[in-house]
Amino acid sequence: MTEKPLILITNDDSIVAPGIRFLIEIANEFGEVWVVAPDGPQSGKGHAISLDVSLRCSEVHSEGPQNEFKVTGTPADCVKLAVNKILPRRPDLILSGINHGSNASVNVIYSGTMGAAVEGALERIPAIGFSLCEFSWEASFEAGRQHIRTIIQQVILRGMPQGVCLNVNVPEAAKAPYRGIRVCRMAIGNWVEEFDARIDPFGRPYYWLTGKFENYDHSDDTDIAALDQGYISVVPITVDLTAHRALATLNQWDFEEKK
Amino acid sequence: MTEKPLILITNDDSIVAPGIRFLIEIANEFGEVWVVAPDGPQSGKGHAISLDVSLRCSEVHSEGPQNEFKVTGTPADCVKLAVNKILPRRPDLILSGINHGSNASVNVIYSGTMGAAVEGALERIPAIGFSLCEFSWEASFEAGRQHIRTIIQQVILRGMPQGVCLNVNVPEAAKAPYRGIRVCRMAIGNWVEEFDARIDPFGRPYYWLTGKFENYDHSDDTDIAALDQGYISVVPITVDLTAHRALATLNQWDFEEKK
Repeated sequence: MTEKPLILITNDDSIVAPGIRFLIEIANEFGEVWVVAPDGPQSGKGHAISLDVSLRCSEVHSEGPQNEFKVTGTPADCVKLAVNKILPRRPDLILSGINHGSNASVNVIYSGTMGAAVEGALERIPAIGFSLCEFSWEASFEAGRQHIRTIIQQVILRGMPQGVCLNVNVPEAAKAPYRGIRVCRMAIGNWVEEFDARIDPFGRPYYWLTGKFENYDHSDDTDIAALDQGYISVVPITVDLTAHRALATLNQWDFEEKK
Repeated sequence: MTEKPLILITNDDSIVAPGIRFLIEIANEFGEVWVVAPDGPQSGKGHAISLDVSLRCSEVHSEGPQNEFKVTGTPADCVKLAVNKILPRRPDLILSGINHGSNASVNVIYSGTMGAAVEGALERIPAIGFSLCEFSWEASFEAGRQHIRTIIQQVILRGMPQGVCLNVNVPEAAKAPYRGIRVCRMAIGNWVEEFDARIDPFGRPYYWLTGKFENYDHSDDTDIAALDQGYISVVPITVDLTAHRALATLNQWDFEEKK
């Protein structure tokens, strides 16, 4: 690559979140950075896109060398709008995050941070979603700095398998110094006991989505296991949602028409 | 099964859409039907869940034997709320749709209809998302009736492989009579040229998400090929997003720390 890589940065916690600020600082070491990120919180938006509303995009003041734009849409909208309308050329790399909170295991399915990274994979642009396993706005990202650098370096050097992006989770700061980086698969689990039911001042019920994560997958090669042991987890995520192993089973079913 | 199966129905086009009405009619032949569906359009919401707003749920008048509730959230919210708070017991089957518009190929990633079905798979409840490859509110679902019955029958009889749900697409009515049901994998493609940029009456730009689908995947075993040939496509969809084939590649990367 003769010119500096063009790096698009987005997230789901909004353009003012400490996590995206930390990621911008690191990315500025590697290339020309363009930030196109939501103007407000978009957590839990998964791969949602805006079909019923139009989008606004406006440039915002930048304190560093990066260009910055805020968008009234989801993380996936931000990637689409950036690639199609905002950036001066196709980005060489898309970074999403750093999310405040874990996107390990099935959280990847609900994650706006990872929705943006998967959108990168659909666009055939190398993309990485980063998350810290700590929700607090005051959480420290510092202990992961060198590991995040290493992962970005490797992706710039090696590219990405087609239709794949990376889901990187960093253990909570209390687990630092981290033991290293571990490539793993996504643990299978689920959220249970999911609602806090309340009564409003007018006597009517309403519900807050809440819940506890339950891990069903206790083998040692998962992201949950790696994070528990103090490793940064790196899971390759595919855009191909086909359950390939189920195809043979389904082909034995009786799909002939009954009269 | 001694008692009639309990069937949860949801969708992303809202509880009043013709597609969900058609699906309710069929489902009433098979079991006790509970409808818990969005109160307004939720197309393109993917697997989004509501974290920043609370949910309302209210029973609505039903013209048939089914119970009906409308929810102020996404399709995935509807499944979570139904399973945790609304239904009298765990459902035996979740049906989502029938969506007005194709959810073949990568559309499954953006689809609220399929977000609900995947939520079923996470809950380990057999789930099927149905879509008709026609956007119009006036589209006819009739030609697919017997095939949809057959698929529901098979799932009630055989259950579902763990962590899997089905993505069923029915060709547009003009292709009827359909040639049958074909089990296939999801085609890999992408949406291109995605925005219609406009200027508002005050001189400021705004953007409508639009675009053209481009299929990169021209082999005969995909859902796009099946639909083109007049078959109903059945794709098993997995909750495991790990790109298993990429694990070996990533394990060769140099993730040791550089000092």
